[in-house]
Amino acid sequence: MKARLGPKDKIIPHPVALVVSGSFRNPNIVTVGKIGIVASDPPVVGISLRKDRYSLQLIRETGQFSVNTPSSKHCRETDYCGIVSGRDSDKIKDIKMTPLRSSLIDSPILKECPYNLECKVIQEIMLGDWVLLLAEICEVHVDEDKLIDSVTGSIDITKVDPMVFCSSINEYRVLGKKVGKGFHDGNSLRKKD
Amino acid sequence: MKARLGPKDKIIPHPVALVVSGSFRNPNIVTVGKIGIVASDPPVVGISLRKDRYSLQLIRETGQFSVNTPSSKHCRETDYCGIVSGRDSDKIKDIKMTPLRSSLIDSPILKECPYNLECKVIQEIMLGDWVLLLAEICEVHVDEDKLIDSVTGSIDITKVDPMVFCSSINEYRVLGKKVGKGFHDGNSLRKKD
Repeated sequence: MKARLGPKDKIIPHPVALVVSGSFRNPNIVTVGKIGIVASDPPVVGISLRKDRYSLQLIRETGQFSVNTPSSKHCRETDYCGIVSGRDSDKIKDIKMTPLRSSLIDSPILKECPYNLECKVIQEIMLGDWVLLLAEICEVHVDEDKLIDSVTGSIDITKVDPMVFCSSINEYRVLGKKVGKGFHDGNSLRKKD
Repeated sequence: MKARLGPKDKIIPHPVALVVSGSFRNPNIVTVGKIGIVASDPPVVGISLRKDRYSLQLIRETGQFSVNTPSSKHCRETDYCGIVSGRDSDKIKDIKMTPLRSSLIDSPILKECPYNLECKVIQEIMLGDWVLLLAEICEVHVDEDKLIDSVTGSIDITKVDPMVFCSSINEYRVLGKKVGKGFHDGNSLRKKD
């Protein structure tokens, strides 16, 4: 039997990322759970921010931001950047992370996050109190020691150790065991001719 | 040291969902990895489909679809629905899932998926070969035996047993251990006044 919950804003689970806006000298950071890839060629990421967020103001000024995937050891820091405003504190200093120069944008990437996207905004969509920013991913970085193959860009996910967030119960989880290979295991269900 | 990978369309990890379009009598199913919540009030989900997808054609006809979260035991079925077209086969029958009547839309939800969203399209955005569909979530269902609290809608994530997909290495993973509590653990980093 199914229970009806009414309209809810949750999918389970979803990624969490640290979005860095502003300039290299004056960056700001915010935790974003409303994030996903929305197109592939060119690659486009979508992030949503509340319209009163300080990060939104900074992104609108420059049209740029970076997306940084934290490891589970930075769970507390990730949570902190979602509950404190950059108007009140220098959060990157507070969490002791290190801004690094990006290649193509002025907003820095974060050294302590193993996977980083440089993004340029191409479109903004108002959705009630939220603003969906669509941004072209113009460069991707990964820690060299987490890279398996520099041609395909495949990474050692165990070393990256990313988290997902389970919204309905407010839990950060690490990844568990592999249960299947994508674009592969489904072939066993194809009908034989 | 960081390695530059160039523009890539990957965030890690991300959710996977089974999107059901069409009518109750003639539904179609497709696996979607480009999916995320984009707004909260009202709740809006974004999914992206390639512009040649059969599901896109069906969604454009009705303006509706359901989003269904599969458990890890349906990993093979999930993969299958991403690599075969509904133009060539009745995939819901192929994977032996059961369409159930939705409450507010004509596209069914899937009995075998523990968590289900009913969605009505509000906007469509072209992004190269991809189409981003923004849809209001008008109803949510969960298996009663996975529900912890019917008021808050909190669910037993272990019983739901959802997967995430790690794009750069094409792996389906289950959830691992809890590493933190959201909107809570970060408070320990707040500066004392």
